[in-house]
Amino acid sequence: MSTPNELARPHVPQLHAYTPGFQPTGNDWIKLNTNESPYPPSPKVSEAIRAVVREDGAALRLYPSPTSAPLRSQVAEIHDVSSDQVIIGNGSDDILNLLVRVFGGPDVSTGYTLPSYSLYPVLVAIQDGRVSTIEFDRSMALPVEQIARSDARAFFLTSPNAPTGVGFSNRVIEEVLEKFSGLLVVDEAYAPFADENVTILLNRYPNLVVVRTLSKAHALAGMRVGYALTSVETIGLLDRVRDSYNVNQLSQAAAAAALSDSIYYDGVIGRIKRTRDYWLAVWRDRGWFIYDSAANFLFVEPCDSTGQSGPTVAASLFEFLKSKKILVRSFPSHALTAPFLRISVGTDDEMVAVDKAIQAWLNHDP
Amino acid sequence: MSTPNELARPHVPQLHAYTPGFQPTGNDWIKLNTNESPYPPSPKVSEAIRAVVREDGAALRLYPSPTSAPLRSQVAEIHDVSSDQVIIGNGSDDILNLLVRVFGGPDVSTGYTLPSYSLYPVLVAIQDGRVSTIEFDRSMALPVEQIARSDARAFFLTSPNAPTGVGFSNRVIEEVLEKFSGLLVVDEAYAPFADENVTILLNRYPNLVVVRTLSKAHALAGMRVGYALTSVETIGLLDRVRDSYNVNQLSQAAAAAALSDSIYYDGVIGRIKRTRDYWLAVWRDRGWFIYDSAANFLFVEPCDSTGQSGPTVAASLFEFLKSKKILVRSFPSHALTAPFLRISVGTDDEMVAVDKAIQAWLNHDP
Repeated sequence: MSTPNELARPHVPQLHAYTPGFQPTGNDWIKLNTNESPYPPSPKVSEAIRAVVREDGAALRLYPSPTSAPLRSQVAEIHDVSSDQVIIGNGSDDILNLLVRVFGGPDVSTGYTLPSYSLYPVLVAIQDGRVSTIEFDRSMALPVEQIARSDARAFFLTSPNAPTGVGFSNRVIEEVLEKFSGLLVVDEAYAPFADENVTILLNRYPNLVVVRTLSKAHALAGMRVGYALTSVETIGLLDRVRDSYNVNQLSQAAAAAALSDSIYYDGVIGRIKRTRDYWLAVWRDRGWFIYDSAANFLFVEPCDSTGQSGPTVAASLFEFLKSKKILVRSFPSHALTAPFLRISVGTDDEMVAVDKAIQAWLNHDP
Repeated sequence: MSTPNELARPHVPQLHAYTPGFQPTGNDWIKLNTNESPYPPSPKVSEAIRAVVREDGAALRLYPSPTSAPLRSQVAEIHDVSSDQVIIGNGSDDILNLLVRVFGGPDVSTGYTLPSYSLYPVLVAIQDGRVSTIEFDRSMALPVEQIARSDARAFFLTSPNAPTGVGFSNRVIEEVLEKFSGLLVVDEAYAPFADENVTILLNRYPNLVVVRTLSKAHALAGMRVGYALTSVETIGLLDRVRDSYNVNQLSQAAAAAALSDSIYYDGVIGRIKRTRDYWLAVWRDRGWFIYDSAANFLFVEPCDSTGQSGPTVAASLFEFLKSKKILVRSFPSHALTAPFLRISVGTDDEMVAVDKAIQAWLNHDP
């Protein structure tokens, strides 16, 4: 008899699963490692969940809308596209996975930049797909010509970029859309924190796919909802590969409620941006290099008390913060990112605590 | 510039998406077409959801446990296996999909019986996989020797079978496990309604995968939770391909609450079985052929007022019931199933309404 590893497709036993940010149990951590919102979702969200659940939860015995139909219409209206230009996912990760399954494979390339969202290579590897990567230089300017020349069927661009936080202008993304012959997937997980986004280009560029999530700005990471906007033809392809009940009832209801309360989120997003910009300025004044951020996190290159930066310094601060029960994220596997730490923007109190811990580290306090 | 259909892997534009049972909007339907529970979930489910959501939904801003860790331990304990023999899915469909991705492909076979759950061929087609099907005859006895000789890497067996409701004995499934050289995936979606299940064979057969769902007996179709139990080695393979946050917070909490209340579900399941057995006897007395059911539905071969059965008769009753706002399921695409209708077991009132409608159809009442 064969073992499961022998029965599996040969590439599967070699795969390395995506490593999600550490999710501690217990409430005594300051958790700034996965870019969650520091503020709760709109009060309409918990109302909407309670309205579905009621006293006895009887509604939960029924399957959800297979296409998340009401939510799909609502998303279409918000972005001024038609419903059949929208697909709803179990988180935007679900949609990224569908895109890789439809457009990637062993005989064709899937593209992305380095650095960018570290899930892309994992998804392409699961698909046993060929990759075509394009490296940023330290300027983090978008390598338009290189992407334009890529042979990728689908190219994933995180915009604003993760983990750097750098935003790309619509003008430069439009240049890529004009020149690149494949599908450009613009992963706008952090777009609500940016000055510009490319949804307004959707009806001019059929090769544009915009992916959004409710996990970040909308404070619904726990509910797993994301969506994509693109051509009717591409939605048709993704829908053929999508699980028919991919988004549960309460997630559909929660997302609909959140998206109906833009006034609340405008306030929360404004607050996060003010906190972000304040600490960006403070830490830059301290002499640290930090990229301009169009997201809800800061990508900082810490210097130690002697003014040195680098991977060892970043690792030292990372471990020190962890010892103080402050979680941030490090990216040691790439030369451009190893000297940096990514710090999600927390509440004002949390950021003050982070800064205190940084000063203790600088002062070699235990 | 290429079109999305040209950029897609060549098999994708040819795919036919799985057709889920019709999900009507509005509460005036008697919905017996997707084997949902006619009764609400345990009261502990709505309590658990409210306990996570609280007043402001603040907990929802955080990502869920990536491995559904507490739920995974609980499932392990229930079935007397270790946690690393368990994987939790966004519905059992999620897990079936992972199994096909790990063990299926263009160069190897994935097996299933005809008839069985109509999602299997869809999942294999998405994977551009080869299929190896084994046909039941009208007796619906398990073709043990044929499965044993199948070249499938993974063979999916719905037990109790859908759509027939026929249960297979552990003895006969054990015979397959002894003889078949691939993985046997026993899809036990309906096992809580059966007299036997194969979870007790898990630690004796490393090539056994048991798949369960909370959508049927546990009345949580709206929450999308399923799980699989198998060897540590196979779980390791599935986990490499699984989305890292596949099950949202509230679904994890709802499932945990449901699985903690076996007393409630014993009552509900007993009631559904009594209703099932009552109408099985009544309709058989009317001269209709019906398979013994080990599930929460009846697979009935209706006869019209002249005593005729067949695909046309089944279609006629299906349409008549629909005109009375009663939804059941038909399976016209296979010769063995086309003369039948699958009727989910509803509440006693719903079943009386179905029977009244059947009598009106027999009497040619409008």
